[in-house]
Amino acid sequence: MSKIRDEVITANAKYAKGFGDKSELPMPPGRRFAVLTCMDARLDPAKFAGLSEGDAHVIRNAGGRASDDAIRSLVISYKLLGTKEWFVIHHTDCGMLTFTNEIMGDLLASSLKTATVDADGWHDSADGSGSIEGRFINWLTISDNAKSVVEDVQRIRNHPLVPDGIPIYGYIYNCKTGKLIEVPIPE
Amino acid sequence: MSKIRDEVITANAKYAKGFGDKSELPMPPGRRFAVLTCMDARLDPAKFAGLSEGDAHVIRNAGGRASDDAIRSLVISYKLLGTKEWFVIHHTDCGMLTFTNEIMGDLLASSLKTATVDADGWHDSADGSGSIEGRFINWLTISDNAKSVVEDVQRIRNHPLVPDGIPIYGYIYNCKTGKLIEVPIPE
Repeated sequence: MSKIRDEVITANAKYAKGFGDKSELPMPPGRRFAVLTCMDARLDPAKFAGLSEGDAHVIRNAGGRASDDAIRSLVISYKLLGTKEWFVIHHTDCGMLTFTNEIMGDLLASSLKTATVDADGWHDSADGSGSIEGRFINWLTISDNAKSVVEDVQRIRNHPLVPDGIPIYGYIYNCKTGKLIEVPIPE
Repeated sequence: MSKIRDEVITANAKYAKGFGDKSELPMPPGRRFAVLTCMDARLDPAKFAGLSEGDAHVIRNAGGRASDDAIRSLVISYKLLGTKEWFVIHHTDCGMLTFTNEIMGDLLASSLKTATVDADGWHDSADGSGSIEGRFINWLTISDNAKSVVEDVQRIRNHPLVPDGIPIYGYIYNCKTGKLIEVPIPE
């Protein structure tokens, strides 16, 4: 077993030992909200937003972007599990600020196993037809934090599967201070 | 300001006050691994896998599924930020076990703003053409935990943008005990 895997399993055994009454938590989030944020290792949404187990849905991807998959998750969060407010939280010093689709395409050009793959129902879009090639994937990079937050809140807001009434808040997490700064969303 | 928003901001101010030397953490994950797991409110990957801020990437969506967007994030995690091992962790009592694409389509049928939307570059697939309609979205539901873990590890393993050498581990998190149980992945 790898060192990392061993460490994870050891930490998990310790966590499980003190699990206590968390075994009784119900499936729907107790505080009825969801957070969409970045996968960045420095971010711990439970800590920086004050979440206990059972409180809120946490959706994370590279950049905390409002991808179709993030919206799939938010719609399930609302429709099946009753969340009523959503937070979109990007952050300073994000890796997604450091490259472009073109750079990623070049980086990947040599490591592609094949030039294209067929869609097989995993795509977010309905028929998902089309080919995947490093150069043409939308990596959802970010050029400006405030701009990307506004763009993503508005994309979620305007999505046909998202209910009109749900409040969607935009924030930037500052990796130097741990603070959340609100981003005003234009009407 | 909503009650929830107020609580989040109050908790965040407390967290930022004790932020200390976390302001010096570098962007690449210190322990060089990534976790893909579910958005479920009961799961706290930092707690159940023993992660401190700066340790590992955490990607989360409804089900912890290997969607194109999760794979986008994993490829960025590896190629730009140096992770070398990945964990796919689904869990017992997952919401994704409780419904089907058909049920979700019916639930959404009345709340669709419009019948279709155009792809505008946000889709994971290269050209992302096609329409979005509740009934035809792949919600990536789960019929069996072990099966979905195997399916997702294999989908990542066989993806043309994923390097051959990276170890990918499959686990089920038990919501009643807090324990991670390994899922053997067939060759």
